[in-house]
Amino acid sequence: MGMVGGGRDAFIGQVHRIAAAIDGQIELVCGAFSSTAEKSKASAKDLFLPDNRAYGDYEEMIEKEKALPEDQRMDFVSIVTPNHMHAPVAKKALQAGFHVMSDKPATFNLEEALELRELVKETGLIYGLTHNYTGYPMVKEAKHMIKTGQLGKIRKVVVEYPQGWLATDLESTGQKQAGWRTDPKRSGACGCMGDIGTHAENLMEYITGLQITEMCADLTTFVEGRQLEDDGNVLLKLNNGAKGILHASQISVGEENGLNIRIYGECGGLKWKQTEPNTLEALWLDKPVQILRAGGNHANLSESTLANVRLPAGHPEGYLEAFGNVYKNFASTLQAKLEGRVPTETELDFPTIDDGVRGMAFLNALLKSNESDQKWYKLPTI
Amino acid sequence: MGMVGGGRDAFIGQVHRIAAAIDGQIELVCGAFSSTAEKSKASAKDLFLPDNRAYGDYEEMIEKEKALPEDQRMDFVSIVTPNHMHAPVAKKALQAGFHVMSDKPATFNLEEALELRELVKETGLIYGLTHNYTGYPMVKEAKHMIKTGQLGKIRKVVVEYPQGWLATDLESTGQKQAGWRTDPKRSGACGCMGDIGTHAENLMEYITGLQITEMCADLTTFVEGRQLEDDGNVLLKLNNGAKGILHASQISVGEENGLNIRIYGECGGLKWKQTEPNTLEALWLDKPVQILRAGGNHANLSESTLANVRLPAGHPEGYLEAFGNVYKNFASTLQAKLEGRVPTETELDFPTIDDGVRGMAFLNALLKSNESDQKWYKLPTI
Amino acid sequence: MGMVGGGRDAFIGQVHRIAAAIDGQIELVCGAFSSTAEKSKASAKDLFLPDNRAYGDYEEMIEKEKALPEDQRMDFVSIVTPNHMHAPVAKKALQAGFHVMSDKPATFNLEEALELRELVKETGLIYGLTHNYTGYPMVKEAKHMIKTGQLGKIRKVVVEYPQGWLATDLESTGQKQAGWRTDPKRSGACGCMGDIGTHAENLMEYITGLQITEMCADLTTFVEGRQLEDDGNVLLKLNNGAKGILHASQISVGEENGLNIRIYGECGGLKWKQTEPNTLEALWLDKPVQILRAGGNHANLSESTLANVRLPAGHPEGYLEAFGNVYKNFASTLQAKLEGRVPTETELDFPTIDDGVRGMAFLNALLKSNESDQKWYKLPTI
Amino acid sequence: MGMVGGGRDAFIGQVHRIAAAIDGQIELVCGAFSSTAEKSKASAKDLFLPDNRAYGDYEEMIEKEKALPEDQRMDFVSIVTPNHMHAPVAKKALQAGFHVMSDKPATFNLEEALELRELVKETGLIYGLTHNYTGYPMVKEAKHMIKTGQLGKIRKVVVEYPQGWLATDLESTGQKQAGWRTDPKRSGACGCMGDIGTHAENLMEYITGLQITEMCADLTTFVEGRQLEDDGNVLLKLNNGAKGILHASQISVGEENGLNIRIYGECGGLKWKQTEPNTLEALWLDKPVQILRAGGNHANLSESTLANVRLPAGHPEGYLEAFGNVYKNFASTLQAKLEGRVPTETELDFPTIDDGVRGMAFLNALLKSNESDQKWYKLPTI
Repeated sequence: MGMVGGGRDAFIGQVHRIAAAIDGQIELVCGAFSSTAEKSKASAKDLFLPDNRAYGDYEEMIEKEKALPEDQRMDFVSIVTPNHMHAPVAKKALQAGFHVMSDKPATFNLEEALELRELVKETGLIYGLTHNYTGYPMVKEAKHMIKTGQLGKIRKVVVEYPQGWLATDLESTGQKQAGWRTDPKRSGACGCMGDIGTHAENLMEYITGLQITEMCADLTTFVEGRQLEDDGNVLLKLNNGAKGILHASQISVGEENGLNIRIYGECGGLKWKQTEPNTLEALWLDKPVQILRAGGNHANLSESTLANVRLPAGHPEGYLEAFGNVYKNFASTLQAKLEGRVPTETELDFPTIDDGVRGMAFLNALLKSNESDQKWYKLPTI
Repeated sequence: MGMVGGGRDAFIGQVHRIAAAIDGQIELVCGAFSSTAEKSKASAKDLFLPDNRAYGDYEEMIEKEKALPEDQRMDFVSIVTPNHMHAPVAKKALQAGFHVMSDKPATFNLEEALELRELVKETGLIYGLTHNYTGYPMVKEAKHMIKTGQLGKIRKVVVEYPQGWLATDLESTGQKQAGWRTDPKRSGACGCMGDIGTHAENLMEYITGLQITEMCADLTTFVEGRQLEDDGNVLLKLNNGAKGILHASQISVGEENGLNIRIYGECGGLKWKQTEPNTLEALWLDKPVQILRAGGNHANLSESTLANVRLPAGHPEGYLEAFGNVYKNFASTLQAKLEGRVPTETELDFPTIDDGVRGMAFLNALLKSNESDQKWYKLPTI
Repeated sequence: MGMVGGGRDAFIGQVHRIAAAIDGQIELVCGAFSSTAEKSKASAKDLFLPDNRAYGDYEEMIEKEKALPEDQRMDFVSIVTPNHMHAPVAKKALQAGFHVMSDKPATFNLEEALELRELVKETGLIYGLTHNYTGYPMVKEAKHMIKTGQLGKIRKVVVEYPQGWLATDLESTGQKQAGWRTDPKRSGACGCMGDIGTHAENLMEYITGLQITEMCADLTTFVEGRQLEDDGNVLLKLNNGAKGILHASQISVGEENGLNIRIYGECGGLKWKQTEPNTLEALWLDKPVQILRAGGNHANLSESTLANVRLPAGHPEGYLEAFGNVYKNFASTLQAKLEGRVPTETELDFPTIDDGVRGMAFLNALLKSNESDQKWYKLPTI
Repeated sequence: MGMVGGGRDAFIGQVHRIAAAIDGQIELVCGAFSSTAEKSKASAKDLFLPDNRAYGDYEEMIEKEKALPEDQRMDFVSIVTPNHMHAPVAKKALQAGFHVMSDKPATFNLEEALELRELVKETGLIYGLTHNYTGYPMVKEAKHMIKTGQLGKIRKVVVEYPQGWLATDLESTGQKQAGWRTDPKRSGACGCMGDIGTHAENLMEYITGLQITEMCADLTTFVEGRQLEDDGNVLLKLNNGAKGILHASQISVGEENGLNIRIYGECGGLKWKQTEPNTLEALWLDKPVQILRAGGNHANLSESTLANVRLPAGHPEGYLEAFGNVYKNFASTLQAKLEGRVPTETELDFPTIDDGVRGMAFLNALLKSNESDQKWYKLPTI
């Protein structure tokens, strides 16, 4: 694996590195970690990489790696830059024949996402997207339960993503994470909704297998002077007739990283929250609530869930392990490809460019709906 | 106290009786408990009332009680009938000079509510409305914290009221509670939103001191054949610029009586849920989360909160005690009136006809917004 | 009902009054509320009692009430004094032919308890003891589940009762509740264990149907100058071979009223805590954890549990309602007696003098075990 | 790092590998993974190790690695065998000049532990022991709070470690983990207490900085035919006068891995449980309960805590990350040694042979106390 971005001071780069390393399948062999060759080399040194595999920029990295003998060069590129660079790096990598694992959102805007989808199709290469929250085992169990009809027809979904860290004008203090996330040039046309709202959308569609068809959005910028919205409330219609609520916020004081979802079907319901990710609450029409737990053989968890669990019940796995599952399944699919076999459903269980396109379409629609006086905005089919 | 409704098989009548009795201030002395004199007398007997204070209907009760000497007759009327009878009984009672405690909603529709407000003003009598969830001590503490500025300017409110008991066509089985609640003739033009959505609205406005100015509603009837909506999702604008989400549901399978609220201001947040009512979670910009507990002297609870607490922390008080607080404060206000003194702010802390009017206006607006293609519906000033 | 003790400033007297009133079956008709006639009359006035039913002391009350015509006098005596007065009042009442409801502990020491048991037997009168925590519906459900074999043979029990309110020398500040509870003359030979440890013992024996046969106790007084122990840790052997741990504390800073119990059998386990009393957690060998909830028809609660529930699931009942269940079942048993019929098992489900004797024997044994160098102290059969 | 044990089917070996890899500081370079050379090589292949670094047994590994040039050979040995092999491997490694990281318990019995302590001292090499639960950040915060006096003098400690997986005769089914843990030849003289009771003891002493001076133990074997105890209840006296309770169980049906601790001092208390490890509850004499969260800058966490955190609050870290902290600090200390500098206090914050000796002394004392009729057994000073 070669990494673009993720030098010193970056947050998500280190997350990707741990996630990739955790199962011992993937080795970081090179990187273009920073905007200058010097900084990139310093980061490489921190990571015990040889000097000659630290590149000054992503173009150099992709070209020079391509020039290496096949058994020495990186297998895929991991993209952990701010949003505006995702698409250019991904394109370049795919065009050079490298598989890609990209941080989300896939691209800066919908047009880029559609182009990228084309390119992935054309090249036949593997493209993974770290909508990491779908990597949690109990999220997979929720998906399995719905897919196998245990909840009956889904009627209502409530997905929330409250955070509080941008409740004040943090970007003015020079805080790097706040800086690029509130800057339309680096983040895109959405702030809060692009950063975390898409995770909520992706989680909801992943678990339920349903798609948003119409929405009614109300986006707000609460912190004075901020250029992008920091809060959004959205009503949803889903493609099976279900109704939904999605809201995300970065000004919900005191909230940490509170992604959570509740789903109600005709005969059962589910509740899951990211801060206690190993628990899935199952509610029933005519039985007591059940507490399903990751790793628990008592819960008769599905095989696909267990394939994403490393430890027995009660040994908490967390954010890094879920992130690691995205990498693990991506790597297993890549391995299958190298071995010339068809990947299993479990191996293929990681977010792809299709998730990326839906995410960008969702953001696009949010902006249009927010500006409209009409109640419902229909998402175009793409 | 004389009661109208609440005979055998009724649910809320017994709740009102316990709530009235719990503090030893109020005595049930008569009632028109049922639709027939015979049934009413049977209920009266169950309640250890003398036969001659069991009336065949509310008109008889009010007239005959009025004819009794002042020191023998009831002081006020408690109305616990289905919704369509609230206004007629209240009017009759007020016109006869009796104070009124009514179950919510105040009336069957907005017009009646406005009329009733006039009548209350004219007569100068006391009118209480059992929006009982505002009777919880930690709800009062939340109100106090916001009123005293501890959270700063409020930005976002999320209030939810999920229930699951109407997830199936229960009304067809003959279940009495389901029957009248899903019948537009007895319940009014709203189902779920009238039954519980108004509680959510009232709780939110009570705690925050804010009012809804605009809304965008999406009401749904999920159970086939049902005449009234059983689920509703609403976006809100509040009169200080805050944004909100209100949703209520009676088809959220497995949910019991899950009223809850989250409020985020510029420098603090609050979380409260009715199923664990003695806990109030306080979130802060720059301090750890605090767990405030009813009865706890550690929490420096306000005087007005403590006036509504009966037990030390850790001795859970519940629904009946909160309901009892509505009666207690109503009775104390009545007592003040009898003693010729001005009631204290704590005594006056119970829902009145103004809450009733706002509730009906809210339901009215919900229906209009739901039918409209426009995103925002402005609530008229009333 | 006539009350002894419970005047102004008392805590538990008001609890008994609410508990007795809550179901509308019991009326307070007289009392000897305080140590002086004057204070007693003042309390009576607060309670809307006529002056001539406020007595100067319990002897006067019992004698004068006995002299009243049968249909006017009180039916039973409720004893809510400090511990040292429980037995004298109970004896006098029984000897005069009045039934008795007493606050716990039954008596000041074991000898008195044994005597009282004799007297209850002789008189054939009803004696109730407010080990109120057994009044919670989910405690009754736990008992039912064990009795019907759902957990298999019980192996291990952990019962805890942490409080923190006596972590400092509160009795020196003049606080009344702390005063008598730390005074051996009014409280008895035990402090913490008599006040709350017996509740833990009673709860455990009630739920499991098992009895303590041997114990190993370590009692400690942490607050300097205090005359009675304020913390106790005890290992237990139960009469079916099970092992247990019981600990109670009044110096566990920050704990409110944390009575809780965990029970593990061969094929299932249970967890219950008093601060969230409407929930019972059921653990299983081969199934996910279930959350059983008071009032929930989903949980297939037993009839005896439901008989002690007033509200649907999600409408929290608390301490007063559980306390009320002790009074309700006592009153129903009394009513059965008056009606000349045999009380049902559900009606008879309240603590009696046998619980009182076991409690005193437990405290006696605790002191002996604590003083002994031997590991195990055998409880004599009584 | 070279590993002894941890081949295919092993549980803890994989945990150690992930823990070592997670921060990118440590590389697995060789191993003697299984009892036969063939199996060992198969495991090595799974782990992408070259064939010539897969050894047939630990002796071969240590000798051949020692023969390699210094810059090629392993830096330390990681021991993940069943208990009876811990000491022999550790000795051999230390004698050959290799640092050691060992799974717990350090040795098979106390004598071996004392010998090993001598050897560690003599060689001056680094010896780490994976009492991994002390690796959790909020455990470190608890230690910090007590050390800095925030709780005042500690009075009472309750530490529990309930599990349920051995509630049935699992060892008879051929389950490997159950097999060696219930076999005195491979596990040692203790079952449950050696496997998990020592974790409880270590956690308690680590957090409080106190030591057990006397104990009163009651060990039980509940499952028929089992050779070692599967449950233990212990009363404790600590060296500052505090009292304690420690209990561990493997027959507590439905419990997963429920290690938890509660500590009460004169002016504050703390609660932590392993299944929700990122939360530390702080209780106070005169303030509301606070919820301290790993990664939260709101909580003013200590520097030493933050050094063991990888992610912002709300991004849950778990068992592997805590385990990784033991490796990280061990590796940093090793790095300091290589760089010729004195390790910082934070770097030295990992369990050592002293913890190992205390653990074995604790187990030794448990057995003696359990067999004794005397209440208190004094731990000898070692």
